[in-house]
Amino acid sequence: MLGDRTKTTIEPIRRLLRRGAFAQVRKIVNKTHAADLSVAFRTISPYDQKKLFSMIQDLEQKGLVFSELDEDIFLRIVEDLRVDEIVDILDTMASDDVADLMERFPADLAKEILRKMEKEGSEEVEGLLRYDTDTAGGIMVPDFVTVREETTAEKAIASLQKEYIDVEMPFYLYVTDDYDRLVGVSSLRQLVVVPPETPVRDFMTRDVYRVSTDMDQEEVAKIVARYDILAVPVVDEENKLVGIITVDDVIDIIRREATEDMFKMAGVGEEFVETQSIVKSTRIRLPWLFASCLGGVLAYFIIGRFEASLKQMAYLAAFIPVIMGMGGNIGTQSSTIVVRGIATGRINIRDLWRVVGKELSVGLILGVFYGLVVGAVARITHDQWSLSFAVTLAVMSSMSIAALVGSMFPLIFARLHIDPAVATGPFVTTSIDILSVFFYFQIATVLLNL
Amino acid sequence: MLGDRTKTTIEPIRRLLRRGAFAQVRKIVNKTHAADLSVAFRTISPYDQKKLFSMIQDLEQKGLVFSELDEDIFLRIVEDLRVDEIVDILDTMASDDVADLMERFPADLAKEILRKMEKEGSEEVEGLLRYDTDTAGGIMVPDFVTVREETTAEKAIASLQKEYIDVEMPFYLYVTDDYDRLVGVSSLRQLVVVPPETPVRDFMTRDVYRVSTDMDQEEVAKIVARYDILAVPVVDEENKLVGIITVDDVIDIIRREATEDMFKMAGVGEEFVETQSIVKSTRIRLPWLFASCLGGVLAYFIIGRFEASLKQMAYLAAFIPVIMGMGGNIGTQSSTIVVRGIATGRINIRDLWRVVGKELSVGLILGVFYGLVVGAVARITHDQWSLSFAVTLAVMSSMSIAALVGSMFPLIFARLHIDPAVATGPFVTTSIDILSVFFYFQIATVLLNL
Repeated sequence: MLGDRTKTTIEPIRRLLRRGAFAQVRKIVNKTHAADLSVAFRTISPYDQKKLFSMIQDLEQKGLVFSELDEDIFLRIVEDLRVDEIVDILDTMASDDVADLMERFPADLAKEILRKMEKEGSEEVEGLLRYDTDTAGGIMVPDFVTVREETTAEKAIASLQKEYIDVEMPFYLYVTDDYDRLVGVSSLRQLVVVPPETPVRDFMTRDVYRVSTDMDQEEVAKIVARYDILAVPVVDEENKLVGIITVDDVIDIIRREATEDMFKMAGVGEEFVETQSIVKSTRIRLPWLFASCLGGVLAYFIIGRFEASLKQMAYLAAFIPVIMGMGGNIGTQSSTIVVRGIATGRINIRDLWRVVGKELSVGLILGVFYGLVVGAVARITHDQWSLSFAVTLAVMSSMSIAALVGSMFPLIFARLHIDPAVATGPFVTTSIDILSVFFYFQIATVLLNL
Repeated sequence: MLGDRTKTTIEPIRRLLRRGAFAQVRKIVNKTHAADLSVAFRTISPYDQKKLFSMIQDLEQKGLVFSELDEDIFLRIVEDLRVDEIVDILDTMASDDVADLMERFPADLAKEILRKMEKEGSEEVEGLLRYDTDTAGGIMVPDFVTVREETTAEKAIASLQKEYIDVEMPFYLYVTDDYDRLVGVSSLRQLVVVPPETPVRDFMTRDVYRVSTDMDQEEVAKIVARYDILAVPVVDEENKLVGIITVDDVIDIIRREATEDMFKMAGVGEEFVETQSIVKSTRIRLPWLFASCLGGVLAYFIIGRFEASLKQMAYLAAFIPVIMGMGGNIGTQSSTIVVRGIATGRINIRDLWRVVGKELSVGLILGVFYGLVVGAVARITHDQWSLSFAVTLAVMSSMSIAALVGSMFPLIFARLHIDPAVATGPFVTTSIDILSVFFYFQIATVLLNL
């Protein structure tokens, strides 16, 4: 299906642009879903990107495309637009999407846009900008339906048809008191099945899942996913209903957070870098590799201290890759399980010792197994029991330490309110490398009397 | 909020169970959301798990808990239940959830349950079992609302209130023709805003996003996320409407697929292993480490071939960790970007050469940079330009090769319809380790005349 759309819209757009058949491109562009258009933008030249954007006639469509474009393409297109053109487009968009976009504009331009929007009385956006973009306040929309406890089902339906025609997805009706405080919720379905004269009070649910404006968006996503709800109400510190967060935004958050976690663990920043330029991509990845370089240099100095041993037994060096590799791999296993477990709520950060204890046990068992495998290889190739024993011990200690470090650090970081994914990747790998090499040479020197 | 629920429900349940205050536990259990209960199950002993489950009075609540429980806990509880008890519980559940559960029961028990359900005429479930669980057919539910083109808005609303009271989330009305083929869709909102006597034909959307029964669930999730829709209709090969997939199931798929990808890349299977026993966890992780062990042993033999060089210059060994580490880290960066890019649709597998070319460029630039850094360390500690030059070249080649291998393999695997996440993790890391070590010693031997 997605493949189909590529064939039926993206390919024709590219082909027609190349041929200069602009009338036909214009026709396709104005019929295509913004999500598909944004894919087309990725596959054409900067010049064509500007051209293609200018062909979109509907302001609302332009707004949708704004939200879907990759950052670099967005900036390129915005460059050529006048401030009032931009404001006209933003005026058609949902306020949470505008708030997201405001972070993307260059600071000067953002200020100018805000000034202009304020003059035109667009308070919604300014209100949303007060909240951090990663919190419930930053992602909520003010489009919700409220009723009072005493309203009847019949009246509630009537008000839905008149007052709330603009609310895009009226799944739930929120019940508020005289001070706008949230006291209950009713679904559309409940409204339809009760006798028309029943007051909302009699069938509303009083135990409403709600989030506060300052709750982290990741927590919000967890709640919506956990309780299978379509929208969650956002309340301020006085329990006043100020907005809702709908399930489609939650899907975006879940995907983005998963991507962010993977990227942080791999040390490639937070945002998707593939579509960015080579220079930018290099700049983002360079600092993350620095930890690994520093660790490698440290390992170099550690091995240097054992140069005398190495001179006597050069083949000791040949075991460095397998000892580092086994430690590194089991460390990645442990830290991935723990980081993802924390993110999905499967692991509670208060269970530190239980989780670490279990990972350490797994590390020990696997360490003994693979230690014996590598030890056997050593015994077969070199007729020396002490070498075989040293190698077995080194693999064992490397794998146990790796499981310990790999599981403990993310949990400690999470407790200290440091994002476990960021801290884990390069940090854990590097510490494991250094520790593995150090223990290996220490064990070998003692056991082999070097 | 989630923290609150832990305090207000999970802790009390544990405490009261310990004290044997069963009457009070029973009260709490029957008021608590199944999602929260499933967390409580994780924190108590096997004996208490069975006890707690038996305290749930409502069959529907038991069904919800079934869906939420971890696999090992689920199997433990089911052990003690009679087949007809299980069937009674399954009868209260949505058919897609039943189909999911059927995969979890031991094969014999599953057969027995199906036989019993068939006797009682539960065809829905059997129908769903025909489809692969990872496809649209396997996750769809048959609860949807259909109308004909000529039905008026007024009549459609009336039928919603009468015929379709059991449909849990009637977001969309699907329009079908005389052969049950899907021809259009209307939202609830559209129904409410048009004049009552308008036929559906006049306001329905004809371009319906739809999926076929055999589409992979990951593709389905992409479509729902991409077009911000609340449910997507599933059609068979004759375009007959056979089910819908709702957004809450899509959220679960997205989270599960992200977890699966992370775990596959780290080589820890697909399912979340932390909650499983140490033995099971060890068994799942053992084979994945085998690739890494084999690679390490291969690297051992490669270095063994250069033993003569090492005897002359023992400190060559000291650079092994930094060269392997830099290669391994940039390789992880590249493969993570590509695997996640493919999963989220940001990277098209047909763009192989563009993506690989870009990663290779980034690898080269970063390779030159870090090559010079490590080369400088070599020059400072050993007064020998040729060593410094060899180390610089080795880091450069290791990092370039790693970026090449790390980006190319997932793309090739994806083209061959092999899951790129599974193939990437241990495979890429291991090949990079071997290649890095080999090129390092080859370069050193030639440049240093060893």
